[in-house]
Amino acid sequence: MKTQLTNLQKYLSENNYDIAYISDPTDINYFTGFYSDPVERILALIVFPDQDPFIFAPALEVGSVKKAGWDKDVFGYLDNEDGWGMLADHIKNVKTDPKNWATEKDNLTVQKFEIVKKHFPNAEFPGNLSRYMENARLIKTPEEIANLEAAGREADYAFSVAFDAIKEGRTEQDVVAEIEYAMMKKGVMHMSFDTIVQAGANAANPHGGPEKNLLKKDELILFDLGTVHNGYISDASRTVAFGKPDDKSLDIYKVDLEAQYAAMDAAKPGITAAELDKVARDIIDKAGYGEYFIHRLGHGMGTSEHEFPSIMEGNDMVLKPGMCFSIEPGIYIPDVAGVRIEDCIHLTENGNEPFTHTSKELKYIE
Amino acid sequence: MKTQLTNLQKYLSENNYDIAYISDPTDINYFTGFYSDPVERILALIVFPDQDPFIFAPALEVGSVKKAGWDKDVFGYLDNEDGWGMLADHIKNVKTDPKNWATEKDNLTVQKFEIVKKHFPNAEFPGNLSRYMENARLIKTPEEIANLEAAGREADYAFSVAFDAIKEGRTEQDVVAEIEYAMMKKGVMHMSFDTIVQAGANAANPHGGPEKNLLKKDELILFDLGTVHNGYISDASRTVAFGKPDDKSLDIYKVDLEAQYAAMDAAKPGITAAELDKVARDIIDKAGYGEYFIHRLGHGMGTSEHEFPSIMEGNDMVLKPGMCFSIEPGIYIPDVAGVRIEDCIHLTENGNEPFTHTSKELKYIE
Repeated sequence: MKTQLTNLQKYLSENNYDIAYISDPTDINYFTGFYSDPVERILALIVFPDQDPFIFAPALEVGSVKKAGWDKDVFGYLDNEDGWGMLADHIKNVKTDPKNWATEKDNLTVQKFEIVKKHFPNAEFPGNLSRYMENARLIKTPEEIANLEAAGREADYAFSVAFDAIKEGRTEQDVVAEIEYAMMKKGVMHMSFDTIVQAGANAANPHGGPEKNLLKKDELILFDLGTVHNGYISDASRTVAFGKPDDKSLDIYKVDLEAQYAAMDAAKPGITAAELDKVARDIIDKAGYGEYFIHRLGHGMGTSEHEFPSIMEGNDMVLKPGMCFSIEPGIYIPDVAGVRIEDCIHLTENGNEPFTHTSKELKYIE
Repeated sequence: MKTQLTNLQKYLSENNYDIAYISDPTDINYFTGFYSDPVERILALIVFPDQDPFIFAPALEVGSVKKAGWDKDVFGYLDNEDGWGMLADHIKNVKTDPKNWATEKDNLTVQKFEIVKKHFPNAEFPGNLSRYMENARLIKTPEEIANLEAAGREADYAFSVAFDAIKEGRTEQDVVAEIEYAMMKKGVMHMSFDTIVQAGANAANPHGGPEKNLLKKDELILFDLGTVHNGYISDASRTVAFGKPDDKSLDIYKVDLEAQYAAMDAAKPGITAAELDKVARDIIDKAGYGEYFIHRLGHGMGTSEHEFPSIMEGNDMVLKPGMCFSIEPGIYIPDVAGVRIEDCIHLTENGNEPFTHTSKELKYIE
C-alpha cells in the first residue's frame, strides 16, 4: 500500500474519523495510482483508520483498477444495478454504522452527499478532507518530482517548436497548431491547458486566448504552455521579440526578467510565500510598472496548476523543500504589450531547481 | 432577457421557490450567453421569481459579462474582498431572508453549500435544479440547432482529413495529430473530446485511446471525433477499411450499418427511447453479435455529450421534435475488430435530420 494511504489512515485515526469517502479522481489517483473520470457513474475509494481500504467502481473499470497495481478489494457494479445500495452494503460489511465521515467537501456534490446521508442516517460530516489533500500534496515525493521534470522537458521542446513557428503570414492560432501538432507527433497527446500565443497588444490581456490576427514584425510575442506527463503537468511562459520591438516593450521585458531572476534567487526554504512575491513586486514597483503586475507571483502545481502554495501577498506560509510552484511575474500595458516570464520550480534543501530550462535572455527572431 | 430565464422564473414561481442559486458555468451560459469557468473563484447567477436576476463574478470578468450582452446588474469582487459576504448582501438587498432555495445539487459542492447555509441559516433546499436543467435542455431551440449543424459540418471536414491521413508508417496517434492540426488551421481550436483513432483489434476496446501502434493494411480503422462550435458540440463515428479486411470484420460492418440505418429510419417523434434502442439491438442480436454490442444506442447532446435523452433499454421517454441525440450502434469483438457508426440527429416534426453527412457506405482506402 502506498505511503500516501498509510498517512491518511494515521490522520483518520488521530482525528477520530471512522471512514473517509474519497471520490475526486485526482485524489483517488494520488492514493492508488489509478486514474479515471467516471462522469455520472460512481467511483469511490473507501478508507478506514484500522481496516483495509477498498475501491468501488463501474464494472468496466475493475480490470483497469487491478492493472494499475491496486492489490486490495475492488468491487464493480453494472449500470442496471443499484450502485449506491451496493456501495453502502460494502461499507457496512466493514463497519456497521460509521459515524464520523471525512469527505472532500470541495468536490463532493450536494446530490451525492444527500444519498450518503440517506444510507447512513447517523453519519456526521465534521471535517473537510479537501484541506487535508491540499496539505498532503504540498511536499512532492522524488517520484513526483521526476514526473514534473519530464513534463518540464516536454515544455522546453514545445518552446523550441514555438520559436521556429514564428513567421509573417501566420496567425496566433496557426502557431498554436504548429506547437500542438509537433507535441502529438512526439506522443504528447495532452497539453495541461489551452496553449497561449499572444502577439503585441493582445498579450496585455492575461485572460485572452490565441486569435486569428496575423503576427506582425517588431512586436513581442508571449507564450504560455505546458504538457501532462503521467498525470503531472508542466507550465511555463516565455516572451520573445519578433523583429525589433519599441523601447517601451524592451523596457518592460528587462524589468520583468530582472524580477523573475530575483525571485528565482530568493526562492529557498525559510522564506514565506508573501516575502517571495514581494521580491519580484518591489522590482516592478520601483521601475514604475507596479500597477501593471495584476496577478500573484505564482501558484502551486503538481497534478494541476491549482495546488498549494499560492505565492501571494498575505500568505505567510513558510516555504519548504519539496514544494513546487510557479514564479511568473508579468507586466501588461493595455494597447502596448504584455510580458510574462515563468518557470515552475521545486525547492531543494538549499535553493531550488526549475523544471524548464529554455533561455530567458530576450530572444530576437527575424 | 432570454426566454430560458423567463421560463425559469415561471418555474420558480409555480414551485414556491424564493431564489435560484446557479453556479454551473454551462447553466449560466444557457441562461445568459456568458461562459466562464471561474475555478476556485465565485461566479453565480441569482434568479428570483418576481425580481430582476443578477450576476456575481470576479472583478476581472465583469467586462466580459457585459460584452456577452447581459443587461441586468453584474457585481464584481476582488480577490482580497469577502466575496461570499458581498454576494449574501446583494441577495439580501433584493430579498431579506429567502427561505426556499433552488440549487443545482449535481454541481453544487458541499463546501459551497455550507457557506450559503452559514449566511442564510433559515434557508431550506427542497428541490434539485439539476433535474430542471436536464429537462429544460431537452428540446433545442432553432438557434441551438444551427450551432449543432455548424459543429456537424466541422466534424464532416475532420473525417475528410482523417481518411486522407491513413497511410502505412503512421500510428493512430499520428492520425490524431493530422486531424487536430487541420482543424486548428481552420480556426477550430477545441475538439469536444479526445479524438479516437483505433485500428484493427484495438477498436474492440471502446474505452481505449489512440496508441503508438503502426497502422496495418487489411484492417478496419474506427474514428470517433467532434468539435465545439459556439459552445455546442459535434460527435460522430465512422469506421473505414484500410486495404482488404477479413470477412468477419466486413460482416460486423455490414450488420452494424444495417442497425444504424434502421435506427435512423425509426427515429421519429412518438417512439420511446427504449423502443429505438431495440430497433438497432434486434438487428445485431439476430445476426448473432448481441453480446458484442455492450453500450446503449445513444446519448443526448447539446453543449455536452451528457444530456438527455438517453437512448437505452428501460427509458420509456417518448421522443419529441427538437430532441438531439446520437445513434451509435457498435460491435466489438475482442482480438478481432471493432465497428461503430454514429450520427447525432435532431428530431423534426416527421422524422429527423442528422448533423453529420459523411457517407456511411464502407469506404476502402488503399
